[in-house]
Amino acid sequence: MKEVAAGVDIGGTNTIFGLVDKTGDVIAEGRFKTKDFPEIGNFVSSLVDAINNLMETNSNLKLTGIGIGAPNANYHKGTIEHAPNLSWKGIVPLAELIRKKIDVPVIVTNDANAAAMGEMIFGGAKEMKDFIVLTLGTGLGSGIVINGEMVYGHTGFAGELGHTTVFPGGRDCGCGKQGCYETYASASGLVRTALQLLSNMREQSSLRNILPSELTAKQITEAAAQNDPVALKAIDYTAEVLALGIANAVAFSSPEAVFLFGGLTKAGEMLFGPVRKYVDKYIFPVFKGTVEILPSGVTESNAAVLGAAALVWKERIN
Amino acid sequence: MKEVAAGVDIGGTNTIFGLVDKTGDVIAEGRFKTKDFPEIGNFVSSLVDAINNLMETNSNLKLTGIGIGAPNANYHKGTIEHAPNLSWKGIVPLAELIRKKIDVPVIVTNDANAAAMGEMIFGGAKEMKDFIVLTLGTGLGSGIVINGEMVYGHTGFAGELGHTTVFPGGRDCGCGKQGCYETYASASGLVRTALQLLSNMREQSSLRNILPSELTAKQITEAAAQNDPVALKAIDYTAEVLALGIANAVAFSSPEAVFLFGGLTKAGEMLFGPVRKYVDKYIFPVFKGTVEILPSGVTESNAAVLGAAALVWKERIN
Repeated sequence: MKEVAAGVDIGGTNTIFGLVDKTGDVIAEGRFKTKDFPEIGNFVSSLVDAINNLMETNSNLKLTGIGIGAPNANYHKGTIEHAPNLSWKGIVPLAELIRKKIDVPVIVTNDANAAAMGEMIFGGAKEMKDFIVLTLGTGLGSGIVINGEMVYGHTGFAGELGHTTVFPGGRDCGCGKQGCYETYASASGLVRTALQLLSNMREQSSLRNILPSELTAKQITEAAAQNDPVALKAIDYTAEVLALGIANAVAFSSPEAVFLFGGLTKAGEMLFGPVRKYVDKYIFPVFKGTVEILPSGVTESNAAVLGAAALVWKERIN
Repeated sequence: MKEVAAGVDIGGTNTIFGLVDKTGDVIAEGRFKTKDFPEIGNFVSSLVDAINNLMETNSNLKLTGIGIGAPNANYHKGTIEHAPNLSWKGIVPLAELIRKKIDVPVIVTNDANAAAMGEMIFGGAKEMKDFIVLTLGTGLGSGIVINGEMVYGHTGFAGELGHTTVFPGGRDCGCGKQGCYETYASASGLVRTALQLLSNMREQSSLRNILPSELTAKQITEAAAQNDPVALKAIDYTAEVLALGIANAVAFSSPEAVFLFGGLTKAGEMLFGPVRKYVDKYIFPVFKGTVEILPSGVTESNAAVLGAAALVWKERIN
């Protein structure tokens, strides 16, 4: 009898799930469209059925629990609360609804926290007690581990570094504030920076021939690889603000490493090089040389499922 | 036999120490000038002798440990490292030196962490698991408690919010960086803001008749109480930046409360009122209304000794 944990990643578009053993092997996987279930009751029934099916088609497995990464998730309450990108409105008692259908522990947290847990159980942070994971996608998510424990805070929502203010009065953010970290240090932040530089700089740039509404971080990274001066400067500036926020986070919790994860990190050394340089510029001297800036040690393709499953394995260790 | 902990506060000028029981009663106190002991060996001997004397003059006591708050202290190593305001250079293995003279546990941490521990054991945070203490003096110190535990981080130096960057490229800081939180949100930050406003504003102000080198936060607070327009605006701006940093810290660890401690808080509601208003402005919406901004619940006169002693009582609880 082999023990497995179910990892579930609920996104605005897709819900992906899989059975993961203690070593991080994904034994079986499945997915469906989140939007096909506008009613939460149907979603829960289908999810539990799908997990049960995976269990049955792979005999001799024992399910130890279900870990779920979801937007606007509250770890303390096992709820999803007012998630703008999901069709279920208000406060959804997800863990409770699932437990009515299947008698195993259910743990719910946001996707960045799940990524951090994946890093800790299966990735580059296996031996670490203090680290931070930043997920650089459309926005900037963060999962913070201190003294071997995930930081959930008094509310269960802790770790929203993407909405710390790095430039008071700066760029408008979707959250209603201005100057939030994620309006600079994310894939969409890189695009905004490139647009700003197209207005400030006089140099030729291939980016001038792309509609602003269609410009992507990937195009900017590719242009930078071709030595496009605007693209190069956009990446450098993005790295600088990313580093500023990392240095601030280091002053808070003094981690051993900060892991960068997600689309933007595909820029590789073009991003990591300047990030490390600028961390040295903005870091409080006592922390200089004490923190590593690393790419995530979890493969991106199944990171979400691994991270969610890691929530279960982590609780089993405790 | 009554159990007591010795609390020791090592400052650049004075070293204060006292015997504190489990309920926070200071049973005996003493002090000497730190600068009278340029050699650390002599300092340690005198400190241990002084504690032994206090124990003997108060019979029927049992010493359970010594807690020490000191600048640039490393909790993990029990050391004071490269403290610019102390005459002992390099790395001072303080805990080890003391333990050679007296066989009790010795715990060393920085003064802001000790203040947070005092808040937790004897002050306003007795029932709290997640809170932050900001000490607003010449600089800004911070002690962060998450899930009932002090945050020391990988290096032992965590909790340096005073040196997070709030205005990239802003005011020069003593640490060599620019735009650090404490260059705005502290007693000296208030003075710098008043000087800046004296240049920006045209209004009459009693502060124009004080030498810049002699201007103090207390004078500005007093002038504000007399409705001096420059002083009022200086306090409002200081409150705004203080609040911005608090909102950023809340996004990190989602505490139940942030306690403000130290000289600047004597401004009372004149400071707390605008701080609360601006926290609402800068906080990520999900945290709105979840965090209290409170004055410290520890009396300032013996807070340093209580905080240092609390380090010992806290370890006894664990």
